[in-house]
Amino acid sequence: MRTVEIPLKENAYKVFVGSENVSQLFDYASKQNLNKNVFAVIDKNVFKLHKTKLQNVFSKFKGKFNFIIVEPSESDKSFVTLQNIFTGLLKNNYTRDTLLIAIGGGIIGDITGFAASIFARGVQYVQIPTTLLAAVDSSVGGKTGINFNDTKNIIGSFYQPKFVLIDSVFFNTLPEEEIICGIGEIVKYAYLTDDSFFSFVKNNLAKFRELDKSILERVILSSIKFKANVVVEDEKETNLRKILNLGHTFAHAIEVEQKHKIKHGEAVIIGIACSLFLSNTLSLLNDEKLAELLSLLIDFNRLISIDEYNKNSIYKNMFRDKKNSGNVVKFVLLKDIGKILIDVEAEKEQVIYSIENGIGLFTKTYV
Amino acid sequence: MRTVEIPLKENAYKVFVGSENVSQLFDYASKQNLNKNVFAVIDKNVFKLHKTKLQNVFSKFKGKFNFIIVEPSESDKSFVTLQNIFTGLLKNNYTRDTLLIAIGGGIIGDITGFAASIFARGVQYVQIPTTLLAAVDSSVGGKTGINFNDTKNIIGSFYQPKFVLIDSVFFNTLPEEEIICGIGEIVKYAYLTDDSFFSFVKNNLAKFRELDKSILERVILSSIKFKANVVVEDEKETNLRKILNLGHTFAHAIEVEQKHKIKHGEAVIIGIACSLFLSNTLSLLNDEKLAELLSLLIDFNRLISIDEYNKNSIYKNMFRDKKNSGNVVKFVLLKDIGKILIDVEAEKEQVIYSIENGIGLFTKTYV
Repeated sequence: MRTVEIPLKENAYKVFVGSENVSQLFDYASKQNLNKNVFAVIDKNVFKLHKTKLQNVFSKFKGKFNFIIVEPSESDKSFVTLQNIFTGLLKNNYTRDTLLIAIGGGIIGDITGFAASIFARGVQYVQIPTTLLAAVDSSVGGKTGINFNDTKNIIGSFYQPKFVLIDSVFFNTLPEEEIICGIGEIVKYAYLTDDSFFSFVKNNLAKFRELDKSILERVILSSIKFKANVVVEDEKETNLRKILNLGHTFAHAIEVEQKHKIKHGEAVIIGIACSLFLSNTLSLLNDEKLAELLSLLIDFNRLISIDEYNKNSIYKNMFRDKKNSGNVVKFVLLKDIGKILIDVEAEKEQVIYSIENGIGLFTKTYV
Repeated sequence: MRTVEIPLKENAYKVFVGSENVSQLFDYASKQNLNKNVFAVIDKNVFKLHKTKLQNVFSKFKGKFNFIIVEPSESDKSFVTLQNIFTGLLKNNYTRDTLLIAIGGGIIGDITGFAASIFARGVQYVQIPTTLLAAVDSSVGGKTGINFNDTKNIIGSFYQPKFVLIDSVFFNTLPEEEIICGIGEIVKYAYLTDDSFFSFVKNNLAKFRELDKSILERVILSSIKFKANVVVEDEKETNLRKILNLGHTFAHAIEVEQKHKIKHGEAVIIGIACSLFLSNTLSLLNDEKLAELLSLLIDFNRLISIDEYNKNSIYKNMFRDKKNSGNVVKFVLLKDIGKILIDVEAEKEQVIYSIENGIGLFTKTYV
């Protein structure tokens, strides 16, 4: 079991990374003197697949305990689910001294963190990300939220968990597309970090897919540490933190256009490809460098595909992204591995060109 | 025009108190370089009564401007209204660089502040409290929220406005019960502050009711300054700030039991009476001191009345108050003017006794 510290000025916390460590959930909570009125929000799939394991963990707990099962879909990342959580809390007389526990992927983590931030004006919460994507991404950073009116994460808050517990045992039951999503996020860190991590990721893509434990633990720790450094510098995303959105302006717009038929992590991979093409057309990357950087993404074209899309809808969706101020869309682009530009603007034609070429890598006709 | 500074460590802001100063709204906003994409949330009654004045203010503004009218009722302090605000924002393409402006009483201020705290993970907002109660109470302190499942303010956040503008011109159109509510809150500060402010309030109750401008400005400033000191010491209500809840545990429970047929400020006056009786029955106040302290409330019994109530329902409602942890109800009680105890527990019989005697002052049969 390894531990990463997230040294935020206020609300510092730890991330525990291990295997079969979910059994120690309440030991960690008790060591930190967390509240003993516990309400868990559990991903429906995770509950189905790991029921016995989870019930063993819960049965050892001496405090007040209730839970709710939540469907892990973007359309359920909504005010309706949020209100279901609050109804469950109030029906069982939970008040300020509540400890919420999120057990599931990024969707469950985001809703639960948001619920924790606004119930009784803020209660404690703990995250147990059960997908590779949530482990490397959404469990660090304190961004919480729900979707509203087709706009992703438009309603939310910045709110930190008391700790995060990553147990790789949950990854074994992930469908392949979910594993690809996690790898997609790791690929993003490969572009953001440095040449050596880029090479490591490129050389180990196959091992990630086989869920090789030691390799996986290593990339999870590296990704979390990189993200932690960025988040500590800029918790509220005024500047540096924007680099973590590499590919995301494209990704969010594509997800909405595809009506969430593709997963977030898949959309991020496609979005990074679009960003590389945009970097190239804006002369930030020359053709040779573009080819070198695209090489890490090429392998994914057998795993991800988009059949049909409307480039103008995708472009239009970008203006609804909360990261964009008013009528200007701003992109995170690359000059090289680890050399990142934020807040770059582009002409409509350049963006459309990048959408076509980026998505083009993942259409069925691509060879 | 007078200004009070609210010197919070982060997010310090100013409260402007004056008459006919709403006309300077956008001058203040522009001096502080606030965002120019403005969305106003306006109390239905205020809009009806001050339409021309408000339209004059808005028409001078050069930036983007839209508004929504909101019914100022406890049942509209809800997720439905919150979602209406977000729909209005998204339909008009507002993003991170939004400035929300709340124009109305405490309900409008609480919803708008909460909306500002969670739209795009937090946007700027300004408060224009148009009731006396909101001016002395909810415009300072950063508490925002909505009701849910019969539980007042159970969903919300701590979030500070960029500034607060109090224009006494709005008070002239308040119905008498609203003025009484404001005076009720001022009465609370009379108990919390010191003997001299207590006497001043007691001697000027009639002038408050006539909305005497200079007297009113003086008590508004005193109340805000007192509250500001408390809030600066303890922004998140871990300790000292709890004193501001004098009478509120009773008040919230009575409001719910009366199905919000009485106003919050009226309930606070009754709640303070209950608190005094509870302080007496717990031997914190002797009978003589009880009579002295009740004297400030006696005048209100001609203005406020409760016909019927269920003491057991009121008692039960207290356990749903988010200020109470688990199964214990905690009270703010008095040993004397300015001598306050927090987190006091009491037996059910003592609480019921206090409910009967406190409310008894305001039943029709009381002479």
